Amino acid sequence: MARWQPDARGRLAAAAMELFRERGFDNTTVTDIAARAGLDKRTFYRLFGDKREALFDGGRLLEEVAVRAVTETDAAPFEAVITAFHRLAKELFADRLDLVRVRQSIIDSSPELQERELHKMRSLSAAIAAALRAKGTGETTATLATESGVTVFRLAFARWVAPGSDTSLTDLITEVAAELRAVISAAPDPDPDHG
Amino acid sequence: MARWQPDARGRLAAAAMELFRERGFDNTTVTDIAARAGLDKRTFYRLFGDKREALFDGGRLLEEVAVRAVTETDAAPFEAVITAFHRLAKELFADRLDLVRVRQSIIDSSPELQERELHKMRSLSAAIAAALRAKGTGETTATLATESGVTVFRLAFARWVAPGSDTSLTDLITEVAAELRAVISAAPDPDPDHG
Repeated sequence: MARWQPDARGRLAAAAMELFRERGFDNTTVTDIAARAGLDKRTFYRLFGDKREALFDGGRLLEEVAVRAVTETDAAPFEAVITAFHRLAKELFADRLDLVRVRQSIIDSSPELQERELHKMRSLSAAIAAALRAKGTGETTATLATESGVTVFRLAFARWVAPGSDTSLTDLITEVAAELRAVISAAPDPDPDHG
Repeated sequence: MARWQPDARGRLAAAAMELFRERGFDNTTVTDIAARAGLDKRTFYRLFGDKREALFDGGRLLEEVAVRAVTETDAAPFEAVITAFHRLAKELFADRLDLVRVRQSIIDSSPELQERELHKMRSLSAAIAAALRAKGTGETTATLATESGVTVFRLAFARWVAPGSDTSLTDLITEVAAELRAVISAAPDPDPDHG
């Protein structure tokens, strides 16, 4: 049996990210990743299903932090979801813009990874909506609040990782949430000649 | 060369729906579909890429009607998107609940078809957002209005096709849009210590 490796998971995820950046996702093998991390292939497969998973290791933590935030806040549903994304921004993203940009450029390079990222966001949405329902929020309200919050986060995140951005992710979430409020609450046009 | 077939497309799409319902999607072949429609396989492949496409033949019409509605209305962006879905509801769905329910049950039976349906909705979203931008709506506002409108439509549609529903799709869209307005405009938590 392989010896227990301190933070083998973290080393493998970091090695995978390095290699995906250097050689591209398609040109990197699990053997390469394990070697870069100073571990063997068996250790990799004990921890990850495939090489793609090494790039999505944070998914569960993301859900845990978001669900905890939704559960703890007393805010109304949409505000609760925005609170959760603020928490993610502060606890998991804030100091890691460079890393996040590298990861994003790797994902952008592969339809397979984009599909996996979409799946991760759907799973996060489902976890947040379930946390709202567990607090007694009705089904439709929970879905509307979650989908709206996820859209806000997605747009804020895209602005944050874009080249040249210098606003914090937290502030961008606040900004886009305010834009959404304005868009949704714009009174149905009183003067239909000027839409 | 095969003779020109009057409405071969419509006959093939109807035959595909019948057979998917009777035998299931996986157990139906293109040969079956062509035979049921009284046509040959070559005619099928001249009109559709594969058997899946026969179930998604209305996608382009959906986009055309939605884009025209967005382009013609003077309403503010979110309202314009809701107007587009109202138009789709009236022109393409209203009298077809039975057919839509059958189609939905076929889609629900196959992850491959669900993926294709998602893709259709993404394509519809992109077309609507582009139509808003073409009218001078800013990028973020266009995306927020479109995503919100699509979420409203998705929930209204799910209620409409659910067993026992007897409200019109148009009314359901209006109802869910009102719920979204209420969810988004609920006052931000006045006591941020509990946020």
